[in-house]
Amino acid sequence: MLGSTHGTLTMTPRSARVLACGEQTAGAVHGSAYGAADAVLDVSGRPLHAPVPDLDRFFRPEAVAVVGASDAEGRPNAGITRQLMAWAERVGARLHPVHPSRREVYGLPCAASVAALPEPVDVAVLLVADPLPVLEQLAGTKTRFAVAFASGFAETGAEGAAAQARLAETAARSGVRLLGPNTNLNAFERFRDDLEGPAIALITQSGHQGRPLFALQELGIRLSHWAPTGNEADLESADFLSYFATLPEVGAVAAYVEGFKDGRRFLLAADRAARAGVPVVAVKVGRTEAGARTAASHTGKLTGADATVDAAMRQFGVIRVAGLDELQDTAALLARARPPRAEGVAVYAISGGTGAHFADLATAEGLHLPALSAGKQAELHQWIPEYLSVTNPVDNGGHPVGDWRGRKIIDAILADPDVGVLVCPITGPFPPMSDKLARDLVAAAEETDKLVCVVWGSPVGTEDAYRHTLLGSSRVATFRTFGNCVRAVRAYLGHHRFARAYRSPFDDAPRSPSPSLRKAEALLRPGQQLSEHAGKQLLRAYGIRVPREQLCTSAAGAVRAAAQVGYPVVMKASAPQLAHKSEYGLVRLGLTSASQVRDTYRELTEIARAEDIELDGVLVCQLVDPGVEMAVGITQDELFGPTVTVGLGGVLVEVLRDVAVRVPPFGEDQARAMLGELRGAALLDGVRGRAPADTDALVEVVLRVQRMALELGRVGPGPESGGGLAELDINPLVVLPRGHGAVALDALAVCR
Amino acid sequence: MLGSTHGTLTMTPRSARVLACGEQTAGAVHGSAYGAADAVLDVSGRPLHAPVPDLDRFFRPEAVAVVGASDAEGRPNAGITRQLMAWAERVGARLHPVHPSRREVYGLPCAASVAALPEPVDVAVLLVADPLPVLEQLAGTKTRFAVAFASGFAETGAEGAAAQARLAETAARSGVRLLGPNTNLNAFERFRDDLEGPAIALITQSGHQGRPLFALQELGIRLSHWAPTGNEADLESADFLSYFATLPEVGAVAAYVEGFKDGRRFLLAADRAARAGVPVVAVKVGRTEAGARTAASHTGKLTGADATVDAAMRQFGVIRVAGLDELQDTAALLARARPPRAEGVAVYAISGGTGAHFADLATAEGLHLPALSAGKQAELHQWIPEYLSVTNPVDNGGHPVGDWRGRKIIDAILADPDVGVLVCPITGPFPPMSDKLARDLVAAAEETDKLVCVVWGSPVGTEDAYRHTLLGSSRVATFRTFGNCVRAVRAYLGHHRFARAYRSPFDDAPRSPSPSLRKAEALLRPGQQLSEHAGKQLLRAYGIRVPREQLCTSAAGAVRAAAQVGYPVVMKASAPQLAHKSEYGLVRLGLTSASQVRDTYRELTEIARAEDIELDGVLVCQLVDPGVEMAVGITQDELFGPTVTVGLGGVLVEVLRDVAVRVPPFGEDQARAMLGELRGAALLDGVRGRAPADTDALVEVVLRVQRMALELGRVGPGPESGGGLAELDINPLVVLPRGHGAVALDALAVCR
Repeated sequence: MLGSTHGTLTMTPRSARVLACGEQTAGAVHGSAYGAADAVLDVSGRPLHAPVPDLDRFFRPEAVAVVGASDAEGRPNAGITRQLMAWAERVGARLHPVHPSRREVYGLPCAASVAALPEPVDVAVLLVADPLPVLEQLAGTKTRFAVAFASGFAETGAEGAAAQARLAETAARSGVRLLGPNTNLNAFERFRDDLEGPAIALITQSGHQGRPLFALQELGIRLSHWAPTGNEADLESADFLSYFATLPEVGAVAAYVEGFKDGRRFLLAADRAARAGVPVVAVKVGRTEAGARTAASHTGKLTGADATVDAAMRQFGVIRVAGLDELQDTAALLARARPPRAEGVAVYAISGGTGAHFADLATAEGLHLPALSAGKQAELHQWIPEYLSVTNPVDNGGHPVGDWRGRKIIDAILADPDVGVLVCPITGPFPPMSDKLARDLVAAAEETDKLVCVVWGSPVGTEDAYRHTLLGSSRVATFRTFGNCVRAVRAYLGHHRFARAYRSPFDDAPRSPSPSLRKAEALLRPGQQLSEHAGKQLLRAYGIRVPREQLCTSAAGAVRAAAQVGYPVVMKASAPQLAHKSEYGLVRLGLTSASQVRDTYRELTEIARAEDIELDGVLVCQLVDPGVEMAVGITQDELFGPTVTVGLGGVLVEVLRDVAVRVPPFGEDQARAMLGELRGAALLDGVRGRAPADTDALVEVVLRVQRMALELGRVGPGPESGGGLAELDINPLVVLPRGHGAVALDALAVCR
Repeated sequence: MLGSTHGTLTMTPRSARVLACGEQTAGAVHGSAYGAADAVLDVSGRPLHAPVPDLDRFFRPEAVAVVGASDAEGRPNAGITRQLMAWAERVGARLHPVHPSRREVYGLPCAASVAALPEPVDVAVLLVADPLPVLEQLAGTKTRFAVAFASGFAETGAEGAAAQARLAETAARSGVRLLGPNTNLNAFERFRDDLEGPAIALITQSGHQGRPLFALQELGIRLSHWAPTGNEADLESADFLSYFATLPEVGAVAAYVEGFKDGRRFLLAADRAARAGVPVVAVKVGRTEAGARTAASHTGKLTGADATVDAAMRQFGVIRVAGLDELQDTAALLARARPPRAEGVAVYAISGGTGAHFADLATAEGLHLPALSAGKQAELHQWIPEYLSVTNPVDNGGHPVGDWRGRKIIDAILADPDVGVLVCPITGPFPPMSDKLARDLVAAAEETDKLVCVVWGSPVGTEDAYRHTLLGSSRVATFRTFGNCVRAVRAYLGHHRFARAYRSPFDDAPRSPSPSLRKAEALLRPGQQLSEHAGKQLLRAYGIRVPREQLCTSAAGAVRAAAQVGYPVVMKASAPQLAHKSEYGLVRLGLTSASQVRDTYRELTEIARAEDIELDGVLVCQLVDPGVEMAVGITQDELFGPTVTVGLGGVLVEVLRDVAVRVPPFGEDQARAMLGELRGAALLDGVRGRAPADTDALVEVVLRVQRMALELGRVGPGPESGGGLAELDINPLVVLPRGHGAVALDALAVCR
């Protein structure tokens, strides 16, 4: 079930920041369901825009109903009611308790049912075991949002999933947007309102996982929103992500995600954040099968093939982190730090060992520690003894920290034009030095627009320099471990690099079929695997080069074909459903004469007969020059539909799984980046004196395969959406030396 | 410079734990330098035992001298003197200040020089800029240990390294064991003596990096020793590691290492710890070149090729961690936890999301989360609602934690025979639940011998449940992040698995040459690369199979050879210094007749003439059946000498660097483990219907190559130690189907 949108809601994005990026939203106003008449769709039938739900009235309602409100002390609902009353007071909303048998609750007049509410409410919180009947009653009340706390839905299995589907249908019909079921009070927590600067907005599918992020407020990190999305019968993470990306006070979105309700909606929301330059940091469960299974039994979502999810997140700049601690540290940094002035990281420490250790970790994670110039080093040696290294890391040996020199050194490093980030790891507390160092760093950070990071390495964490000096500054990013600091700085630099270069692939995604489609459709055989020959014709329809070849059904025909193709030739048995031809001896290379061709034709057909394989003929193919053997293909992902893969060809694909994947739509930059991800990428550069391979041609093939994935992987509202391509495997694709192109030697295509 | 040992020291290990492992130390008493007359050496000339220095008197001296002592307030030496006086009082030592011009220091009578000391001292702390003259004076005083704080030695370059070498020589001559230079007061810190149970002993080459571990005492973790080894002119990390492994109070050794002074001494120390079952956890800088360079400029040590260091650590069970925070968490767990009763990990959480996230991280790191039995699940469902999953992770949904059910659940999980470790991640503080949960966990941990781990996920860390309840228990291992918990538990289970199976490779290392050595020595050509033919004869000398082949110097000879070898044959040009033959067209496969052989002989010699390559002949070789192409070789490491590598053969070796390495001596178990480390390992299992390869034969080749590495990689005191093999590359080694062996098709051998 996909969520739907409603005429009662304003669907235009609200922030000038987003509008400035030149997006067009008009077409998407009413178009949340893929099939909506006026939705803008790509050639695959997937939407190119998703509406941003207007959640202002959810987070800042004027009137709220609490259905199932209670003031019977000891009952869970009484506690919840009190918390909601406190929240309503904070946000300035009128609260209306609803209960069939109470006259009042905590002194407030109580309505017997939602029909009896004194005014339409923005938010109805449903504290009832079965929210369905209440949701139905809300249909006529102009209620904008409902929140269902009840559990026992999709997370419990098929029966619960059916109940959840009924909830979703009712919400869609009623015009009420639903949060939950299986959600909680987190959205209505008391946020600190004394903190300033850009905030973190939080999305959690499991509310409890947001607790440590919420606790960040005690360390001075501002949190503006918390969306505990639960089972996402209607409103989903993507809706909140889109909305948060429009809010000027949001510096970063942090998310704990177990699964996505809909892959494309997630991509569109991430695209919206990327266009707006709002960093998104996420823990996504499902790296392992155990994790995926456990997540499914928790909120009932699909986790998707992890490598594909991982690729999709990277395509749209979503920063995936391993754990909740890294989520906190990275989101806090990205929310608050200004864009970098330079990519270089300078490390400053009171111990050479600290510098060595940090440099090691930082370099291993891909950070760049530029050597400081001779002039800068001379400047630093005014204050730091000559025998200490100040190349970067800068080792001050300890003593200069304690006096007037301490601040001078920090300022001198920050003034270096190659330095965008200064990191000072304070390994352990040594108050005579570390207290003064912390104060100097905080003071210097106030006067620079460069990023100043401190690692407070003490496991104790009650020290004054940490609790007050460092955490008291909103200009210093303070970490507890070297590792989290290194990864957060990498994410920070990476995010801004990504955001500067970002160009939405949805803008360029094809909306109408290419002329290739008609040719291709004639070749498809629903539900079948195509023969090699047909598969290659499919490729040819999309402009992918295949060897000259003819399908022959007689020895004499084969000899004629060989003459036309040109000797030497390759001969292969061809049949639908036939894989691993070479293991049957059904491929012969380098045949140089008519008599060899004639003999080979007979041998191949005999083997096929013996093995009970029904051939559609024997292929006589041009022998292609050697090159780098790659594999390019299409696979289906349960979340994202058809995806495009590229990897090393031959038997290595299976053994090494050295494959890069992308979710369409993506541009040439991503196709090229795929090659860089391969461990065997150096093969393409030419090894042992071989010429570099024609990577441009390889990239072109990847993009043409993407076009096939889009055009032949259409979704639609009905069963007629089938009939395309389920799977494609071009293996090997021989990539010839630069300037000579790439040729698909074999293709395995499976139709839907 | 290698350290040396002295008659004045008792060199026998002191702990029954070590002696119980059956080691023999008699031969090593005086044999710390490799060449010592009575040292037990392996066939490569490297020692099989290293003495354990008696550091009892260093850490618990009876008399101490402070050379350069001062009570002039404001001078750094005055502060240090006071700290040393406090330390001497704590350990019950008499302290004697030494200063040329003071009569007393802080009321203690002051000697004018070390010669004027009233008694021989155990430890002389040298607070002087140039420790060399004092060290010379100490020679006659029966002083056991000297500690040099001065810096400006190997860390500053060649001149400093020479000064350091003079220090080392003087120490060796004087009979005084030297700690430093470039060390500090860390060994003399005030350790908490109110903490009980097994302790962490700490070794740091850069003292400052030990600060956070020292601070662990504030969290209730006991620390017994701290050895800040600095530049290691004499005493090195390995000495302290060996010593700490003999102490009954030491539960784990934690180390921060920038480089090793001597590879073999490190291995012997790690072996000693492994025999004693004492876990060693280490941060080792030098993963990247930047880290290695920075470390070198800090304490002047070599970091070694990182992959080799990594392999060496794993061979001897040293647990390498990424950062100081992981060092703390892992060492604390390993020091205190009892051996596991089972390998299974059970995860118990008050939120399904927490369980899903933890299960994901744990499974990705290789932990085993067994599904609980139906009976156990039924038992748990007495207290946990039916709709929650209790398979493992166990999700209690929150409420049962708050009452009597909480403890029952924990006890029931701990009683499961498959469960060796219970992990309870408390994602965020929610006092009504988390405080009670923490108390129940602590109480349950007191009554079980299984490991109970808690992750306190709140970033705040001042909560009572954390500070008092959890940290107050020595039976619960408390972590701050999921990641560190998962990795520490993995290290804990891995350590005990390793320790149970450990068999020292030094016990089985060959001490005398095999008959192969004499044959091999006749083939070596010092400083030269051998021809393929000579290289293969070298392999044959060590029992490694090569194809039948003959080296021919005439076309007629080649035809005769082909008849003897058997058609079809392979022909290859053979010459010393010749690599990449196939790129010159100097390899021809599948020749089936005398005329082909004759023609090929002429072609190969013509190409060689045109390319100006002086052939020693043309090889006529047996054509070997296809198999999996591997590469096995010997490379030299600056720290460890010859090492053995195995990887995928052919061009892939270069592109994918899919290579496993081991430092000799190692046993068959390690040779087999090397294959498992290869990403392409599945090639050996047989892919696409191919037969599994003869991995036994491959392992045998690896072990024979190790024998070559040992016998032909001898070290010795003089220049005659050369003359062996510098490098060997068998590539490809064709591994035939199981039962058919492995054949070296080509060998590149470079002599020293």
